[in-house]
This record gives sequence, C-alpha cells and structure tokens, in this order.
Amino acid sequence: MKQRDKFFELSRRAMLSAFVALSGLLPVSALAQTAMTDPLPSWNDTATKKAIVTFVERVTKQGSPDLVPPAERIATFDNDGTLWAEQPIYFQLAFALDRVKELAPMHPEWKDREPFALLLRGDLKGALAGGEAAIFEIVTVTHSGMTTDEFEKIVRDWITTAKHPVTGRLYSEMVYQPMLELLAYLRGNGFKTFIVSGGGIDFMRAFAERVYGVPPEQVVGSSGKLNFELRDGRPILMKLPELNFNDDKAGKPIGIQMHIGRQPIAAFGNSDGDLQMLEWAKGGGGVRFALIVHHTDAEREWAYDRNSSIGRLDKALDVAKAEGWTVVDMKSDWKTIFPFGSK
Amino acid sequence: MKQRDKFFELSRRAMLSAFVALSGLLPVSALAQTAMTDPLPSWNDTATKKAIVTFVERVTKQGSPDLVPPAERIATFDNDGTLWAEQPIYFQLAFALDRVKELAPMHPEWKDREPFALLLRGDLKGALAGGEAAIFEIVTVTHSGMTTDEFEKIVRDWITTAKHPVTGRLYSEMVYQPMLELLAYLRGNGFKTFIVSGGGIDFMRAFAERVYGVPPEQVVGSSGKLNFELRDGRPILMKLPELNFNDDKAGKPIGIQMHIGRQPIAAFGNSDGDLQMLEWAKGGGGVRFALIVHHTDAEREWAYDRNSSIGRLDKALDVAKAEGWTVVDMKSDWKTIFPFGSK
Repeated sequence: MKQRDKFFELSRRAMLSAFVALSGLLPVSALAQTAMTDPLPSWNDTATKKAIVTFVERVTKQGSPDLVPPAERIATFDNDGTLWAEQPIYFQLAFALDRVKELAPMHPEWKDREPFALLLRGDLKGALAGGEAAIFEIVTVTHSGMTTDEFEKIVRDWITTAKHPVTGRLYSEMVYQPMLELLAYLRGNGFKTFIVSGGGIDFMRAFAERVYGVPPEQVVGSSGKLNFELRDGRPILMKLPELNFNDDKAGKPIGIQMHIGRQPIAAFGNSDGDLQMLEWAKGGGGVRFALIVHHTDAEREWAYDRNSSIGRLDKALDVAKAEGWTVVDMKSDWKTIFPFGSK
Repeated sequence: MKQRDKFFELSRRAMLSAFVALSGLLPVSALAQTAMTDPLPSWNDTATKKAIVTFVERVTKQGSPDLVPPAERIATFDNDGTLWAEQPIYFQLAFALDRVKELAPMHPEWKDREPFALLLRGDLKGALAGGEAAIFEIVTVTHSGMTTDEFEKIVRDWITTAKHPVTGRLYSEMVYQPMLELLAYLRGNGFKTFIVSGGGIDFMRAFAERVYGVPPEQVVGSSGKLNFELRDGRPILMKLPELNFNDDKAGKPIGIQMHIGRQPIAAFGNSDGDLQMLEWAKGGGGVRFALIVHHTDAEREWAYDRNSSIGRLDKALDVAKAEGWTVVDMKSDWKTIFPFGSK
C-alpha cells in the first residue's frame, strides 16, 4: 500500500471505529463485530495499549462500577511532542522564524537589533542563545499587530506550504498516527478531547480542527492580549504585543479551569511542562488516567528526555514512575509514528 | 394545570422538539409531524418569533444558500437579564451579600470597615452607594480564599436554598421560559450554545448545566486569578482575591475569542454591556442574528431600560433600532415569563 493510501486507510478505520462506538442504534451483531475491529491499530499489543483500553472500558462500559457520565469524560492533550513532533525546534518557532524573514523588508531597524540581526544573517543558534527572552521577542513581533482573522489566514497559508527541514513533509503531517487514533477512540467513547498546550491558542486553532478533529473551542493555549475595535465601522480584534496567559506548567491546570471548568479524567503529555496537568487529572476522585509520551526512537523519530532543551522530560518521568502513570515507550509501543511512516 | 406541571410540560415539549430536530433518522412522516409541533410555545406569534425562526431556517435548512456548517453554529447568550432576571439586584450580588452575613463572625474587623459595616447593619443601599468599588470588594472577599471545588459547593448550596425577595422562588427558577425554549431550539438545530456574561464564570458553572443545559466548558464569564498548589499532596486550585478578566462590554468579544475562537453567528443580550458582543456577532460574513431582550413588563417581570442602574439599556437600544436588530418586547412577545408564571 502506498504511504498516502495507508494514511487514509488508517484514518478511515479510526473514524469507523469511532462512529460505531458512538452509535447506540446498531443491532447487537454489528456491535459484536466492532469489538473485533482494533480502534488503535498503530499501537503494538503491549502493556501501554492495554492500560489505555482498560481505562476507557472501566469508565465507559454500562454496568461498570467506575462508570463516568459522558459530560464528565474530559481528556486533555498537550500538543508539541505529544500530538505532533517538536524537533529540531518547536514548529511554532519555525513559523515565527519564517515570519521574521518575510517581515524583515518592513523592519529595516532589525538589522541592528538582536535577536533579529543574527537571525536574518542565518545564525539561528546565535539568535536563540538569548534563551526565553529572545524567543519571546520573536514570537511577540510575529504574533501581534494584526487582527485575529488576518493571523488565522497567515498560519493557514504557512501550515499548508512550509516543510519540515528533516523530513521535507508539511508540519501538519508530522502528527503521531497512534495519537490520532487515540483521539478518535476517546471521542468514539463519548470523551470530549481538548488540546492544552503551551503553544499559542490562535496558532493551534488555525489547524487543530482539520488535523486533530479538535474544534477551536476545545483548544486551550498561551495567548496575547486582544483589543476590540471598530475599523471602518466593522468590529475587529487586534492582537497586541503583550502576554495574556502562559499555558505551561502550573498554568495548565489553571487554563483547564478557565476554559473547561471541569477536572479532566485523562491527560496526555510528554514533558515537565505537562506535570501539573497530569497531577490535576489524577487528583480528582475515581478512576483517572495519566500518560506520558517518552521519545525513545532516534531512528524513526527523535530520542530525548532529561537533558533536552526542547521537551525536557525529567521530573515528570520520575513522578510517572513513582506514581505508576502510563509511559509510552515510542520505540516499542508504536507500530507507526507518522501517518506517512517515520523520519 | 398546576404551575409546576406546566413547567415540566413546557420543558418536555421543548426537549422533544429539540430531539426530533436533531434526529436525521426519523422517517419523513415523523418530520412532517414535527413541523407542526411549536418549538417555541412560550413565544407569541409576533414578528420577533418569526425573525428567530426565519434566521434558524436560513442557516440550517439543507439547500439554503445561507447554510452554515454545524461546527460554525455558535450562539452566545448573556445571562443576567437575558436568561434569568436581574432585579432588584444581580443574583450573584445577592449571593455575595448572603455570604458576607455568613462569614461575618470570622471577620470581626468588618464592623469597622465599609462597605461591610453598613451591610451588616442592614443598610444595603448605603453599602452599595460606594458603587462599583464597593461591589468589587464585596464580590472579591466572598469569591476568594477557597478552592474551586469548595466554591462550587458553596454556590450549589445557595442556589438550591436561597429565595428571591420578591417572588419567594429559588433564584434558579427565575429563568425565562421563552429563553429556555430558544436554547433548546437552537441546540436542536445543531447550534452550540454558550453563555457569555459579566457574571462570575465559576458562579454560573455551578448551575448552568442543570438549569440551562449549558456545560461548564461553554460558560464564559468574569474570573479571578487562580493558583495551583499541592495541599497534603493533593492538587488544588485556590481562588485568589485578584481580578483576572472582566467579561463585560468590549471584554465580551475578547472572552469569546479566548474561549471559543470563532465569531458567533447569533448573540443574545439585554443591556449596553452586551453591545460589543452583538456587534461582534453581526460583524462576521453571511447571515447573522442579534437579539436584545427589552424589559417592558412591569407587571409580570420588571420594566427598565435607559436609566436603570441594573441592566441599563440605552446605547444598545439605539444601535439595535438603527441596525434593525431584533428587539424582544417582553410584554407582547412572551406568552410566559418564568416557568412558574410571572412575578
């Protein structure tokens, strides 16, 4: 099967399983047949997959003592490194860097201003040596000064054209096939799936529905301040160069409360930035699920954890082990990495 | 029919219509029958009702040139004065005042501190003479210093016991029957209904699902800051005495963007505080709907608009008339006010 056909075949199967699971109207024979269709075909038959399926069955099967009403079936997913890759740099930063190059002609002053001067001379490493402050400045100038509508269009144009430097694929293709299946499997079992990411909320919303099946109102992320204005009598929302909310670390449970107002019963992450979200999900009563994607496959994806500057997984890995959370060993648990295969 | 039975009968009919409208699986004969069941029985057959039904049919009927995909059918509702009453004082302020009385024994210093001293001596008018600053202080001390879970329980206890001073009914009974039907009618036509209110987000979430059928994740409101902490190893979110977001006036479109990330195609309000939300809804492309509930019925509810300190409707009424928005004349458009009847 061609890679592209395989992708569609996998998506089709995940969607079919989801649809069948949703439907209470099918006769019993059809349901029995469904049970034999694997909703998670890209997951190897390991303890990880079993833990996921066991959790979902415990909280959703009629008659289960741990049954959770559909309205409370909230699952939250980190994005970078959990739903899509994040190497060699966060994809949103790649977007911002591309924008700096495009905007440079309108900003002659950047030639003498860091981190822009180094960036425009092609010295990415030098520009990013300024750490979070440099990244914050790059993100701020590229994510403000336009309306929310204009920004959405800019991101849509980028996400449908820009290519990843290593794979040559669209960034939106570099999503994890097993996680797409997991999203569909949970939704098929009455879960509402949310993205809760340190990434920009408006950035992710521009593609989350098409790529993940997660509508804008179920995306929680970092944000800048907005201003409501009438421009020629038409209302607009201007994106201001000022941080509104940082949806990372302890910000994640706060973002969850602000947006969702319910404690998730399942949460999925991959780094120390997700620790508090996973603690928050596990902290409620009843059966709860916390999962960490551990990047262990240098060949098919990337291998990194405790000492990585991107997606650092150190304390959360210790907590996961101590608390018995589910840890995905990407190398052994995932049959497929990306819809198109692997790196 | 007894008032209570009438309430259930009305709710049952609204729910039935909603269910039938949702179901694409019924045979045509059943659908034809539905068309004869009025989904808005508490609305008189006036131009207002016709405007609502015409809008919904234009954006939802297969084959309509103005058809809007279900994912984009976002409707936003103000709460105070739009979904439930707001006289003689905002119900959330009534809650806060009750809390001040309950908390007073633990705050001996309030005897010498305004606005608490006047309040505790029974001089509500004097206490509120301090205007927004006084109200902000009363709301702050009663809405912080506990966890989100603890606050939810406090509100639930109050909303199921406290009685309105004029009607003697539970506050949660003082919701507008025509608006309950409208919520169900829109949901039955594939709309996602959101509350977007200047009221406190955590306060409304404690009853919005039960009373309006709006789940916590579809409630947008004003909020205080939160802090994530581990208390005896268990994660909690503490409510801090600091404003996070004021979801009123120009804050409403901003709150909508933050939470929903889509421009509503329909918005419903009753005061100048809703003007920008209505402008934002009308500002998108295609067919849009903006409705203002005008409180014109002093006998069955309350009559107030341009000079009211609560729910002041002045500029928004002028804009509504100039722009041809739909204005509900409560007295002539609503057959029933509350599920139990009227004031």
